Formats: sequence, structure tokens, C-alpha cells
Amino acid sequence: MNNGEKTHKHKPKSDFEALATQDMNENLTRTAQWTVTQKLALTARMLAAEGHGSALAGQITARGETPGTMWTAKFGLGLDEIHASDFILVNDDLAVLEGNGMPNPSNRFHLWIYRARADVTCVVHTHPPYVSALSMIGVPLIASHMDTAMFFEDCAWLSEWPGPPIGDEEGDLISSALGDKRSILLAHHGQLSAGETIEQAAVLAFHFERAAKMQLLAMAAGEITPLPPAAGHHAHDYRLKQAPLNATFDYYARQVLAREGDSVLA
Amino acid sequence: MNNGEKTHKHKPKSDFEALATQDMNENLTRTAQWTVTQKLALTARMLAAEGHGSALAGQITARGETPGTMWTAKFGLGLDEIHASDFILVNDDLAVLEGNGMPNPSNRFHLWIYRARADVTCVVHTHPPYVSALSMIGVPLIASHMDTAMFFEDCAWLSEWPGPPIGDEEGDLISSALGDKRSILLAHHGQLSAGETIEQAAVLAFHFERAAKMQLLAMAAGEITPLPPAAGHHAHDYRLKQAPLNATFDYYARQVLAREGDSVLA
Amino acid sequence: MNNGEKTHKHKPKSDFEALATQDMNENLTRTAQWTVTQKLALTARMLAAEGHGSALAGQITARGETPGTMWTAKFGLGLDEIHASDFILVNDDLAVLEGNGMPNPSNRFHLWIYRARADVTCVVHTHPPYVSALSMIGVPLIASHMDTAMFFEDCAWLSEWPGPPIGDEEGDLISSALGDKRSILLAHHGQLSAGETIEQAAVLAFHFERAAKMQLLAMAAGEITPLPPAAGHHAHDYRLKQAPLNATFDYYARQVLAREGDSVLA
Amino acid sequence: MNNGEKTHKHKPKSDFEALATQDMNENLTRTAQWTVTQKLALTARMLAAEGHGSALAGQITARGETPGTMWTAKFGLGLDEIHASDFILVNDDLAVLEGNGMPNPSNRFHLWIYRARADVTCVVHTHPPYVSALSMIGVPLIASHMDTAMFFEDCAWLSEWPGPPIGDEEGDLISSALGDKRSILLAHHGQLSAGETIEQAAVLAFHFERAAKMQLLAMAAGEITPLPPAAGHHAHDYRLKQAPLNATFDYYARQVLAREGDSVLA
Repeated sequence: MNNGEKTHKHKPKSDFEALATQDMNENLTRTAQWTVTQKLALTARMLAAEGHGSALAGQITARGETPGTMWTAKFGLGLDEIHASDFILVNDDLAVLEGNGMPNPSNRFHLWIYRARADVTCVVHTHPPYVSALSMIGVPLIASHMDTAMFFEDCAWLSEWPGPPIGDEEGDLISSALGDKRSILLAHHGQLSAGETIEQAAVLAFHFERAAKMQLLAMAAGEITPLPPAAGHHAHDYRLKQAPLNATFDYYARQVLAREGDSVLA
Repeated sequence: MNNGEKTHKHKPKSDFEALATQDMNENLTRTAQWTVTQKLALTARMLAAEGHGSALAGQITARGETPGTMWTAKFGLGLDEIHASDFILVNDDLAVLEGNGMPNPSNRFHLWIYRARADVTCVVHTHPPYVSALSMIGVPLIASHMDTAMFFEDCAWLSEWPGPPIGDEEGDLISSALGDKRSILLAHHGQLSAGETIEQAAVLAFHFERAAKMQLLAMAAGEITPLPPAAGHHAHDYRLKQAPLNATFDYYARQVLAREGDSVLA
Repeated sequence: MNNGEKTHKHKPKSDFEALATQDMNENLTRTAQWTVTQKLALTARMLAAEGHGSALAGQITARGETPGTMWTAKFGLGLDEIHASDFILVNDDLAVLEGNGMPNPSNRFHLWIYRARADVTCVVHTHPPYVSALSMIGVPLIASHMDTAMFFEDCAWLSEWPGPPIGDEEGDLISSALGDKRSILLAHHGQLSAGETIEQAAVLAFHFERAAKMQLLAMAAGEITPLPPAAGHHAHDYRLKQAPLNATFDYYARQVLAREGDSVLA
Repeated sequence: MNNGEKTHKHKPKSDFEALATQDMNENLTRTAQWTVTQKLALTARMLAAEGHGSALAGQITARGETPGTMWTAKFGLGLDEIHASDFILVNDDLAVLEGNGMPNPSNRFHLWIYRARADVTCVVHTHPPYVSALSMIGVPLIASHMDTAMFFEDCAWLSEWPGPPIGDEEGDLISSALGDKRSILLAHHGQLSAGETIEQAAVLAFHFERAAKMQLLAMAAGEITPLPPAAGHHAHDYRLKQAPLNATFDYYARQVLAREGDSVLA
């Protein structure tokens, strides 16, 4: 077969990329106007559907407008139950400023990240099963696939586990280990993704579990081949382009709303 | 980045824990008033949804008010079918005192546990797939994650399998192997969790399968790192605190009732 | 703890078993009266829900009343689509005697089994994913769990794969390899369960996939410990007792009817 | 047992095959008349239900009537959302000729395949999880089961990953590596299936993920036994016979329409 022309000329890839970026910015426009707490509720639901729930564990927070404040869901709900109105505003000692209920006492380390990282507006932390299993074997996350390249050299690893993270020590430890990366694998614990936007943190957290699943399947069957660094870096930046990343969040949000209805936003 | 203050002072973790415990006791209040058999039916359904079913196997029982008696579901139903009214009261020879039908003949070893352990009011025994697979390879459960720390040095291991557990020998063997722990992995058989409350036994059983799944995934991919003992013990006790544990049961119960309706309680 | 009496006397296990058998025969009574083709359609649906489907592969057949005849579903349907009225009666050359459509040409080896085994009235053959994966690594099924003890020394292994089984050679080969056992693992192909009743073949086939899944999980994580032979044989016979086996089939049938409606029986 | 006649005569297998082919051509008739874009939308939905989705990745395209043109879905939709009317016609530089929106910029390598392979009318490319995990460990797809024999010596392997495939280089590389085969495993990336018909490409892509899952499960548990070449070739050709392959597509399409409704076709 192979009877076609093999001599089709190559145009420069950088031209294609510039054009693609422009096209995506123009075409992948957003129609919904969600508030901060609505985006957080959508994030909880899309992660729940992806299997991130582990009893009452997992916190999805956003930096509040007033310095030192943070939005977090009231404690006692599963990820699949959270509505926009379940988010409460707390101060930098987890005292409730707005809304009813209490925050999860294990939410304190989020405050440390917001203090350490002015660029972060949202932290998504969950204990999904594949991430949890991976966190038990003393190895970092390996980004060895185009679709998980968002973690390529952008995922830290905390090999130490200090117990239930209810104190300042854990906040200090986790925020230091995160450094200037977007994500971190926490030994014996789970994943944390810190985004410049809610959309970014949500999409990172969503794909962290997929990356962990792929890594566990691959390690059980053979030896993982690393990404070539230049292509890995290129794919990392490509996956984090704002327009397609927001379009990915919007897609997962449409799935939530189609399945669970608009009351998620209430 | 990391441009925030790194000098935020650490408060003592014990202060945080005392405050958290008090806050949880005040905020995680329970609204539903379920009877013993309603809680048992809810347990059956939450375990069914988590994949614990294996044909007609698995028994969820509670100590009856009269010494030597026990509530158990009538034999012949799957976990996903059980209603509160399907529970029958049996005596210490499995003879039916209240209700129609017969108990599962393999229910006898529960009686041995209630005799041996005055602190136990509920026994949840199931054969879910990951526990079952783990029970085939001659190793105990390894609690190597914060969310499975409820099993840290609190899960026994019976490496001997004496066949279908319909006799007194199995009751003696299993209750002896359990000792004073809350849970046990039974070789070639399944898991058993014995709780001070129905809620505790249910939550233990629910997470036993998750712990087994995480262990199998981790062992297939690498070598499991043990929890540091002090942190493991702390997390064990933290996970078993009554208020959040009951809140976890209530969450799983809400999922059951939302999905399957109130008839579960009838 | 362990503060209970440890000196409770043991009654003989054989007494318990006799009593249990009598109780089960009396209590696990059947209410539905299904025809042969209704039972076959229920079997197709319960296996579909358990993930046995692989495109159009898989055949569920029953011996016809007239010698040399067999009921089989018309070719072109998935397991999840089959109704009782989709079964056609074919002769020992796969020619259609009753009903419309054609049989799956790979159905010929069922005829060989019915000829070789007067005790068999039903053959259930499927290619579910875990059985299929297991069939690729050159090892027999290992029954190392109480719930899969129905296969203990009762599951043959055909290590040779002769290609698509459309000829007489495959019928001869498969029926010879099956010998006098109830089940067989067919290399590069799937599982086959031959029952004295439709219920038995259905329950065997259903649990074959679970046994394969447990075996693969266990082998990936460690080394499988064999069942002690005496207990294994006891559990084998216990699992095949008619009353609880039929009750298991009826349970799976109730799940089908609750989920898919009575039209399955039409 | 084995009390039946063992001396039943063998008829030639080639006679059976000729008869089976004729019977299938007569009996497995198609009733629906779908357009090209309707078949593409059905393909997207059947793959979505099989778990092929990975954010916005994956493209299902068909050669347009005018040389150099191609149908592809507008960018920004998940596989589970695509309707027939979402397909746009693009030219050989991905410029839109018909319909609204933009193509996925990573769609360029499909154009290279259509140029190189006059026999191909449809390309289905996805990043499902098992294929993705397999693509990380540097091994080709192994067709070691009757149901995946469609890939037997008909699946290429590209071990090099050049980064996000938005340029001409990737088109050249992938189309060259594909050669004259129908499918290819792309390292760190996913699967691609190129069919003479949409039905063929769809069914190949659907089963590629199953083949990858079976391979990973098998490799984690043991060592894969290769198919005997003659039987492998026979099964390959048998699985690709047009009548049963189209019947398989129609079955998956019925599942889509029963679950998601006729609006998929709009």
C-alpha cells in the first residue's frame, strides 16, 4: 500500500504552534460565568466522579479576596455531595468568617501554601486510590505520557509522612516540599495540586490520579521509559496553555451538570 | 516563587488536636435516628455498592439485647437486596427467635466472637474481591496509608483455612486469632471487622477492601514502605474518633438512601 | 478484652452440615418457574452485567429435548441484548430446526460436549477479560479461595489453541480436554462451564471470571498458596449443593429483572 | 462420564468456513443506513463508553469525498459529547471548509495517513488508559488471544515520541511507522487504527484498548505465550471478515443508541 506521496513538504512546527495557539484562543471561548464557590463545587463533583473520594478526606480550597482568608467546604460532606453554598470562608487560623459549620481540621496546610506561594489561588488535595497506592511504595510520580506531561518536572515528592496533617508542622513541611512546583505526591497520603487558577488546579488533580494509575499499571508490567526531556518540556507547556486547559475544565463541568443537575451550583 | 513568609510560628499540635476534637464533637452532629436493623441494612447496602458482594456470602450481624442472641439477615439475599425487615434474631445455636427464614449456616463463628469479646456489638464479614485475592497469597494486611491507619497494628491474620466455617471449630479458631483486635484477614476467605458500634464495624469493613486494593496495587508495582510507628498509632486513633467516624457512616448512608430510596429502612 | 468463655463445647461439624443442608432445602425454595430459554436469557444478562461480553463472542446453550438438538441464541447479538425468544433450536450439524437466524458458527464444539457428556444439559462459554488475560500466560486456573472452590480439581486446562473453533477438530479437542470435569480454561480463548443444570453452568461461568481476576491480582502481587486438599474438596462440594446454588442463580436473576425488566423473559 | 461417542467423524474445516462465511453474509444483514458523520459520532460514543476518553484528546476522522479533505470533530468536545453535526470538513492544511469551529491542531498526522494510504477511509486515534500505560514501557502490542487476533502481525509500533503531534514531522513519522498495517501503538501517546471502512477502524480501536488491558494484566502476572502463527493468521482474517465485523459495529451502535438516544445522530 503506502502508495501516497512521501515528499509532502514539512512546514516549521513553531509556525503550526503559533497558529494553533491563536486558533484555540479564538475558538475555545467560554460561555458560563461561574463564581469561585461554583467552580469549587464543580471541581469536587468532577473529582468525585473520577473516584477521588475517600470518606470525608480531600479539600478543595481557594484563596479569599481578603489576605489570609480561604474558601473551603464545611467538614462532613463527601466530594459527591458538595454544593457551592457549602463553602465557608475561614481565616488564617481556620476560624469561620462566613457560612455555617467547621472546616476540616486537616485543612491547615493549605494556609501555609497560600502564604508561601503568591501565584497560587487554588489548592486541590485528594486521596484517590491509585495515588494512594503509589504513595505507599516510596517512588515519585513519573510523567511518561503526553497526557500527563503537565507533571513533567513539575511534581514534587514528599517522602516523609508526619501523621494526620492537623498542625503547623505539616503545613511547613508540605509547603516547603512543594517548592515552586504545581503538584506534589505526599507519601502515605495523597496528591496536592496548586494552581494559578481553579481550573488549572482542578485539571491537574483530575489527571494526577490517571497518571498514578498508568504508572502503577506500567510498573506492574514492565519498566517505564522516560520522556525525552525536550519533548517532555514542550508537552508540559502545551498541556498547560490556558485556552485548552479551560476548555478541559468546562468539558468536565458539562459532564457534572448533565449528570447531577444545576443544583450543584446553588 | 515561594515568596511568602517562611517564619510563621508553629503552635503545639496537641492544642490543635484538642480543638479539632471539640469542634468535631460539636459540629458533626447526627440527625437520623436509625434502629439496629436499619443500621445493619444500610451497612449491607453501602458494602454492596463498594463491591463487597460475592454471591450469597457475607454476614452483617449485631449483638441482641438478650445475652446469647444475635441479629442476622435471613439467608438467600445478596447484600444489595437487604432491608431492615430481613434481619432475624437467632440464639446461640442459630435457632430463629424472631422473624422468618434461616440464618446463613456459616454465621456460627460470629457467635464465638460475641462470646469472646464483650466490647463488640457488631461483626461485619464479607468476601470482596481485593480482600479475597490478598487472602490467597499468605501475607497479612499492611496498613501503609493514612486512610487505612485504622488497621495499623489493629488487624489480625489467620493463615489457616479450615474449610466452610459452619462448625464450632471455625468459631473457636477465628475468635482466637482475632484476639483483642478489631479486624482480621482470613486466609482463602475474606475480612472480618468487629466494632464497638455498628458504625465502627461498617466503616472498618468498608475501608478494609480499599486497603487490600491499595496493597495489591502497591505490591504489584513495588515494595511497600511501612508507616512510622508513632505517626501510624496517632493516625489509627485519629481515624477511630467517634464523631468523624459516625459522620463517615452517615455519609455512606446518605449515598445509599439517595441512590436506593427509603425502602431500605423498611 | 477476650473476656468471654473459651470453653464453649464443639459439636461435631458433620451434624452442623447435615442440619444446614436440611435447612437450606427447606428454606431456599424457588418461586419463579422459568422455561429453558428464559433461564438461558437470564444467564446471558447476568454474565453481561459481570463483564463477560466480548463483541459477539460467547455462547450459552442447552441440550434440546430431542437427542442431537441444542438451544442457542441467534448470531449477531451481544450478551446484554438476548431475550428468551432469541434462542433457536439447531440440530447436530447446526442447522436451524426452530426460530429465525443462524447460530454462531463457533458453536459446533458445544455439540461435541453434549455428545460426550450425558450428564451435561447446559454449556456456558464466554471470553471475559480476566479469563482472557489468564488464558494468555500458559497456566491453569488455581482455585485458592472458598468462593472459587467450585473449581477445586474440577477445572481442566487446554493449553493448545487451534484457531477459530468452527470445525469438528476443535469440538473433539475441547470435549476431550474437558474430560469429566465441569469447567475448562481454554488457552488464548476463554472459559467453558458445563453443568448438570442451567443454574449450575451459569453460576460456574459467573464465578470463573471472578476466580481469574483474583488469580491475576494475586499473581501480580505475590505467590498463591494452595488450598489444603481436604478442605478444598469439602468446599467444592459445599458450593455445589443444589439448594444454595439455585438460590445464587435466583439472586443474580432478580438483579437482572430489577435492572432490565421482565422483557428479558419474552 | 465421557460416555458419548468419540468416533464422530470430522468434516473438513474449510467446508465449515465456506459455509459460515456464506451464512453470515446472508444472515448478518444491516438495517440502519447511517451517513459518514453519523458513523463517526457513533464511533466516538462507543469508544467513550469503553473508557477511551482523555480530556479533549482523541480524533475520529474520515476521508472526505474531495481529495485532500477530511471530516473531523470540532475541537473542545469530549468523545461522549460528539453528535453527527459536530463534524467539520477540513482541507489538507486543516482549514475549515464546512461547519463551525476549529479542528484539533493535533489532527494533522491523520492527513499524512490519508495521503500515504489510498486504502484507508477512516482513522481512529485515542489515548485510553491501558493503551497509554502500555505505551510507557517500551514494548509493542502482543496479540495473544483469539479476540485480539485482528492485531496479529497487523499492529505497528512507534517507539519514538516527538512531543505534541502538531507538525508535519509527526505526520511523516507516524504514517511511515504505520506502513501498510491497520493499527499502531504510539509510544507515550496512544493507539491509532486505520480502516478500509469506518466500521473496521472503529472495531479495531475499540478492541485495541481491550488488548492492551489483557496484555498488562497478563504481563503483571506471568509471561505471555505467543499465538501459533498459522492459527493467529487464520483468526486475524476471520475477525476481519466484513459481515461479522459490521455486525459488531452495529451491536456497539445499538448500545449507544439505547443508552444515549437518537440525538447522537443529529
